[in-house]
Amino acid sequence: MRIQKLDRHTRRNLLEDLLKRSPNQYGSYEEGVTRILEDVKSKGDEALFEYTAKFDHADINEQNIRVTEEEIREAYELAGEELISIIRKALVNIRSYHEKQRQYSWFDSKPDGTILGQKVTALQRVGVYVPGGKAAYPSSVLMNIVPAKVAGVEEIVMVTPPGKDGKVNPNTLVAANEAGADVIYKVGGAQAVGALAYGTGCIPKVDKIVGPGNIYVALAKKAVYGYVSIDAIAGPSEILVIADDSANPRYVAADLLSQAEHDELASAILVTTSEELARRVSEEVDEFLGVLSRSEIIRKSLDNYGYILVAESMDEAIDIANEIASEHLEIQTRNPYDVMTKIRNAGAIFIGEYASEPLGDYFAGPNHVLPTNGTARFFSPLSVDDFIKKSSIIGYSREALEKIHTDIEAFAQAEHLTAHANSIKVRFEDKEA
Amino acid sequence: MRIQKLDRHTRRNLLEDLLKRSPNQYGSYEEGVTRILEDVKSKGDEALFEYTAKFDHADINEQNIRVTEEEIREAYELAGEELISIIRKALVNIRSYHEKQRQYSWFDSKPDGTILGQKVTALQRVGVYVPGGKAAYPSSVLMNIVPAKVAGVEEIVMVTPPGKDGKVNPNTLVAANEAGADVIYKVGGAQAVGALAYGTGCIPKVDKIVGPGNIYVALAKKAVYGYVSIDAIAGPSEILVIADDSANPRYVAADLLSQAEHDELASAILVTTSEELARRVSEEVDEFLGVLSRSEIIRKSLDNYGYILVAESMDEAIDIANEIASEHLEIQTRNPYDVMTKIRNAGAIFIGEYASEPLGDYFAGPNHVLPTNGTARFFSPLSVDDFIKKSSIIGYSREALEKIHTDIEAFAQAEHLTAHANSIKVRFEDKEA
Repeated sequence: MRIQKLDRHTRRNLLEDLLKRSPNQYGSYEEGVTRILEDVKSKGDEALFEYTAKFDHADINEQNIRVTEEEIREAYELAGEELISIIRKALVNIRSYHEKQRQYSWFDSKPDGTILGQKVTALQRVGVYVPGGKAAYPSSVLMNIVPAKVAGVEEIVMVTPPGKDGKVNPNTLVAANEAGADVIYKVGGAQAVGALAYGTGCIPKVDKIVGPGNIYVALAKKAVYGYVSIDAIAGPSEILVIADDSANPRYVAADLLSQAEHDELASAILVTTSEELARRVSEEVDEFLGVLSRSEIIRKSLDNYGYILVAESMDEAIDIANEIASEHLEIQTRNPYDVMTKIRNAGAIFIGEYASEPLGDYFAGPNHVLPTNGTARFFSPLSVDDFIKKSSIIGYSREALEKIHTDIEAFAQAEHLTAHANSIKVRFEDKEA
Repeated sequence: MRIQKLDRHTRRNLLEDLLKRSPNQYGSYEEGVTRILEDVKSKGDEALFEYTAKFDHADINEQNIRVTEEEIREAYELAGEELISIIRKALVNIRSYHEKQRQYSWFDSKPDGTILGQKVTALQRVGVYVPGGKAAYPSSVLMNIVPAKVAGVEEIVMVTPPGKDGKVNPNTLVAANEAGADVIYKVGGAQAVGALAYGTGCIPKVDKIVGPGNIYVALAKKAVYGYVSIDAIAGPSEILVIADDSANPRYVAADLLSQAEHDELASAILVTTSEELARRVSEEVDEFLGVLSRSEIIRKSLDNYGYILVAESMDEAIDIANEIASEHLEIQTRNPYDVMTKIRNAGAIFIGEYASEPLGDYFAGPNHVLPTNGTARFFSPLSVDDFIKKSSIIGYSREALEKIHTDIEAFAQAEHLTAHANSIKVRFEDKEA
């Protein structure tokens, strides 16, 4: 891996480089996505079946679009007992963590008859997009469905593209069934997003669409935002490791590669205060590259977006980490919790040399759907928060309103909203008459 | 106002009608907005000054784009003591309510060395858009700035278009200063949104842009979503009143009109179980129309999107209220809290005959920036939540990881992610060697 001193020049180039991966740059696909969405809106199921034939080469119709119980039973046999048991163990941890994210309705009352509060309601129906083909990750199915389930969503509608044989990946089906999907439809791509946003004969309209997908899916989600809610648009995966000379170079190297293997746009960055560690991590990376099965992808992603940066000080390392706002941040230093207090921007923070990033992908419990591409500056991990919404509660008595009614009327008048003022005034006109 | 029986036909027409007001329908403006955003991105301040000259007919440059302390002092004199004092009283209530929305970092630890948690961090820099001209509402300035301030945002950057004289509305400036805006720039429209999203020489890049605006501002916000976060895209205002025969027709009529006066796209709907109330509210509306200053706007908005619907039962009334998912919902019935328990979808719920909607706009404390156009199905009122984000915390010891390391490795292998499996495996290879 390239080793660079973290100076102003490196810093600027690096930040510009990483932003090139933004899904905002794929304008050329937009036209096709718009056409698909319009077709689904106007032609409904017919458009779904046509696009599934065209893109997935599968023959899907009203009769077979919905995954049957028989197909799920079959999937359990194909998935095998070991994976089923691991999925169940992971689910225990994932549910337990997300249970702690629950939010509750509250109110505050005063003896004058004022009640102010906030009512928390789960979304009613949610769509979960699950990619097919080589990106069919059962762990991702768990991570998208569990928070919705914990939030209390009444109906979870999953969509996923079928293979040419009209079947869905069995591991995906097992994960969906274990996590609690209520119904699964065999449709993918922008057409599936359109179906969830507008509703078709077969597929019901949902309130929110979550789940990762390719560029067509991402653009379709962005286009329907407003009709329905969406989760953050996922970009390529990222890891940033902050390490000092106490870190184990073999662990650091292995963790960098675990993200680099995702795809050629993935980014793996080490920022260290130790030149010695920088050198040794680079050596370990080379060694692993000789044995790992996905080394071709890894090599490309490291060439594109892999960096080992040597910082002058821990503060400088922390500073660049906050600026990059990485999806995954590992802190492998002598006092990792000290460093953690200074981190503003990161999707998930892994602390200490045994908190390896894949632990979070599969098993620890926190969600692995995390803000990418610098969006950890303002977005959060997928959570129960994404599947609830709030309504303000305002209850007032005559006594409470009377104390402030002239102030409200004057404020409304200052904004020239006379009917606003009037609606307060009429309640006290008997007094003024 | 038209009175209709709430049957299936009315219901469908009504829902279709309301959706016509969606900002998603204004595709024809998109091209202009895209050009403005591209200009701001490539030419920076120069583009800001040009567009401000073109659209606001004001001469703005590096020297005068930032509102000075002198201008703020001047604004206090122009606003007058009464308004300043009312703003301060309203601020006490608004701050107090939003303080209760604070969320806190938490962690959960186990004796085996596991620490899982969630770290809450305020966004660092936020942009608040404030409209100029006839829509210059100081109350809206308070509602957008206070939750950011309570969340702990370090820097609040406000933008608002200047008048031809290069000045900003004094009431806006007083509200901004009282609420705690850190810096105010005289620029509006899509160009202001672009400046906040990309940064220019004068205006710093922010993490999130909030605040209402015209169709150009709404489309610009949608376009930059992903580079920065945005609040929900605001549509025209709405009120829905659920009332039974116990309601005061004069209060109900006054409240309907308070929303109808906003603009011609505003919607005011009464759903009642009482034909008698329906008739009497309609009469009261006619009476108020003779005296209210904004009756021309009100008449148009009632013609477009005003309805009095007579429902068979309270359950039917509640059902249509949930389907419409109104921005403001008033419950004026004998047992309003019973009805409230059945409401799923509403921005703010006003309970009882003294909880008039304008009370919430100005004074009660809850935010008046609310989801519109059916988006209360999945969006929440603007709140402290909008100005924080979360990072997962994952700390593991060797002991804790050892118990599950083979499960994680097997899960990763099942997804063919061998470098993921490797990053766990290397930590225990000494044992296996």
